Amino acid sequence: MDPLHLPRINGARLWQSLMDLAGIGATPRGGVCRIALTEADRKGRDLVVQWCREAGLEVRVDEIGNVFARRAGTDPAARAVATGSHIDTQPSGGKFDGNFGVLAGLEVMRTLNDLGIATRAPLEVAFWTNEEGTRFTPVMMGSGVFAGEFDAAFARAQTDLDGVSVGAALEAIGYRGAQPAGEVPGGMFAAYFEAHIEQGPVLEAAGLPIGVVSGALGQQWYDVTVTGMDAHAGPTPLALRHDAMLAAARMVDTVNRIARDEAPHGRGTVGYLQVTPNSRNVIPGRVDFSVDFRNLSQDGLDRMHAAMQAAFEDIASAAGVEVGIRQVVKFEPCAFAPDCVDSVRRAAAALGLPHMDVVSGAGHDAVYVARRAPTGMIFVPCKDGISHNELEDALPEHIEAGANVLLQAMLAHAR
Amino acid sequence: MDPLHLPRINGARLWQSLMDLAGIGATPRGGVCRIALTEADRKGRDLVVQWCREAGLEVRVDEIGNVFARRAGTDPAARAVATGSHIDTQPSGGKFDGNFGVLAGLEVMRTLNDLGIATRAPLEVAFWTNEEGTRFTPVMMGSGVFAGEFDAAFARAQTDLDGVSVGAALEAIGYRGAQPAGEVPGGMFAAYFEAHIEQGPVLEAAGLPIGVVSGALGQQWYDVTVTGMDAHAGPTPLALRHDAMLAAARMVDTVNRIARDEAPHGRGTVGYLQVTPNSRNVIPGRVDFSVDFRNLSQDGLDRMHAAMQAAFEDIASAAGVEVGIRQVVKFEPCAFAPDCVDSVRRAAAALGLPHMDVVSGAGHDAVYVARRAPTGMIFVPCKDGISHNELEDALPEHIEAGANVLLQAMLAHAR
Repeated sequence: MDPLHLPRINGARLWQSLMDLAGIGATPRGGVCRIALTEADRKGRDLVVQWCREAGLEVRVDEIGNVFARRAGTDPAARAVATGSHIDTQPSGGKFDGNFGVLAGLEVMRTLNDLGIATRAPLEVAFWTNEEGTRFTPVMMGSGVFAGEFDAAFARAQTDLDGVSVGAALEAIGYRGAQPAGEVPGGMFAAYFEAHIEQGPVLEAAGLPIGVVSGALGQQWYDVTVTGMDAHAGPTPLALRHDAMLAAARMVDTVNRIARDEAPHGRGTVGYLQVTPNSRNVIPGRVDFSVDFRNLSQDGLDRMHAAMQAAFEDIASAAGVEVGIRQVVKFEPCAFAPDCVDSVRRAAAALGLPHMDVVSGAGHDAVYVARRAPTGMIFVPCKDGISHNELEDALPEHIEAGANVLLQAMLAHAR
Repeated sequence: MDPLHLPRINGARLWQSLMDLAGIGATPRGGVCRIALTEADRKGRDLVVQWCREAGLEVRVDEIGNVFARRAGTDPAARAVATGSHIDTQPSGGKFDGNFGVLAGLEVMRTLNDLGIATRAPLEVAFWTNEEGTRFTPVMMGSGVFAGEFDAAFARAQTDLDGVSVGAALEAIGYRGAQPAGEVPGGMFAAYFEAHIEQGPVLEAAGLPIGVVSGALGQQWYDVTVTGMDAHAGPTPLALRHDAMLAAARMVDTVNRIARDEAPHGRGTVGYLQVTPNSRNVIPGRVDFSVDFRNLSQDGLDRMHAAMQAAFEDIASAAGVEVGIRQVVKFEPCAFAPDCVDSVRRAAAALGLPHMDVVSGAGHDAVYVARRAPTGMIFVPCKDGISHNELEDALPEHIEAGANVLLQAMLAHAR
């Protein structure tokens, strides 16, 4: 098809909606603080719901506060083609993380309304409760309940630091719905697409507006404790030390080496490290640190796990210290549905938008939804790869391009 | 001389005095908390002064609270041969650090009294104010003022966290003396010896009761800041990271390598390290850490400094981060007087006590006193090399051996 004849979303309207929503919980430095199930979240939800109703969509809320807004299709038997993301933010979050995916979905509906295009299948735009996990854990709570990872009663019983439960917070903001989580009128989504800023630097470095997301890296996180013996830095010769800091430093370097051995998809990060007693002239007796391993295959994660265990034992033995390793988080790698990934790739190609296949290094609601429905994701670049930060930024032309790809991909499944 | 005919100190009396003094500020776990210029310090000082007076010694107090107790000699023109250490402790200190040196000196006096031995030169035992530096900085305050490193007015103006000055605290406990610091009746010490627990593991590992201390390592301490860029651990491929933790880990390993290159006296320690933002799944944007380098020669310290600068720059450049290095502490290496070191070695040999030459990795009052008078030190083992800890411990036979070496070394200079 000639790309000039494809329907296009209204980039200016989408951008304005992003800026309007970002006004709720706006921070002085240009970011957004709209933490899940707060009063700010209620205001944000109310605004998006109002926009959905103005677009003629039918709004449902489920028992964990996920919101779905449906544009009817022409075939009563067709299952919905859905999109969505989240509108909750980190405490010093940005305007685009999550919000882009939700408002791009709304913009698809508005565009189809403007152009008078009916689809065979119903279309839905969803926003999922508490993706960020800032106030309540676990993260990706709403989509996790939808997918059956947690049950709704468990999620509603989670409490914040003040002892307020998710259930009470949902009541307080008026978003505890009646619909059982995971039920979709007419049957589970025929397809689900989520547009999102990349939250990484790959697309920007490659100079491309569209990332075709083939899947999400699996994650295995660990707590590591290295135990040596505190001693005076001065009187203790190197050979008689049990230096937990030295051993931990070598382990940190090894985490990086193990990840490099799994190029291009291996990731290894030590983000947290705590030294005890942490005094200038005392050889540290204990260091605690985190390891975050990611890879695209479970085999790869298994190799990383085994390599870490062997290397850490060797390092500890050489340094005269003990090491304990405890796995604390596991997310399996996720391959998105080839059919949906192809739809995203074809949509970008049809629109003449330069694109590349990428993987998601972070978790997204789409990773849980993929357990229930064929799923794909669309990434657009963000400035310097930064998110979860008030500096998070994206270019209007990339936002527009991503929403156009979403429109084409949804139409491919819904027409 | 046949070692059987040498005079010997009374080991049981010395041990009992150590235990009695340790009763003042005793902690439930067997340690001592007698922080400089507190009420507990006053009680400890009063007890030691009382013991000195009971031994017929003449007690002087100088303007910074250093206490000197003199046993008269037979030659009115002879300068004193002195010993001493400190009786203040860390908040969770032990019974021996400092206290051993002071009470060993007192035991030397008591022994000479018992045996009716007169010396040509006067003998003195000193205890120096605020060696530990726990409540007031700088550390080794009293001996530092005595040596002219700081002036008395500066030291007296230092305040604790409650704003109480050293001067006011000295008044409060009744230990602001009249004697100008650094003045010794009859002229500066002819020699100064300090007996001390090793505070390290070398003698214990070697199975020897006596260390002949040839000098003290010089120290150069640094604050290092590594600046990268915070980023999401998941979406950021290794090649696009600016990982301050990874660079810092390599620097910690390098500090150890630089010290190993300066064997046997090179020491390199990273005791303090702080990660920002210190979150499991965020690549650290900043790491601050300390470097403590020690060596027996200034040339050696200069080589370590240069090696660190070059290596840190290379590591930073390879990791795409910036590094800043700031020197914050410098103590020059100290070689004790060969004559005094020989006296200690000969005393151990004469007593048939196995011994080895060692260096002091930590600072001691003797290092300051060495600027004014020929100085030597005697080390005895401590259990597991532990000090500054309630677990600090030493064997009665080692305590006795160290005091006998002190007696012989002092007599060699005072007879």
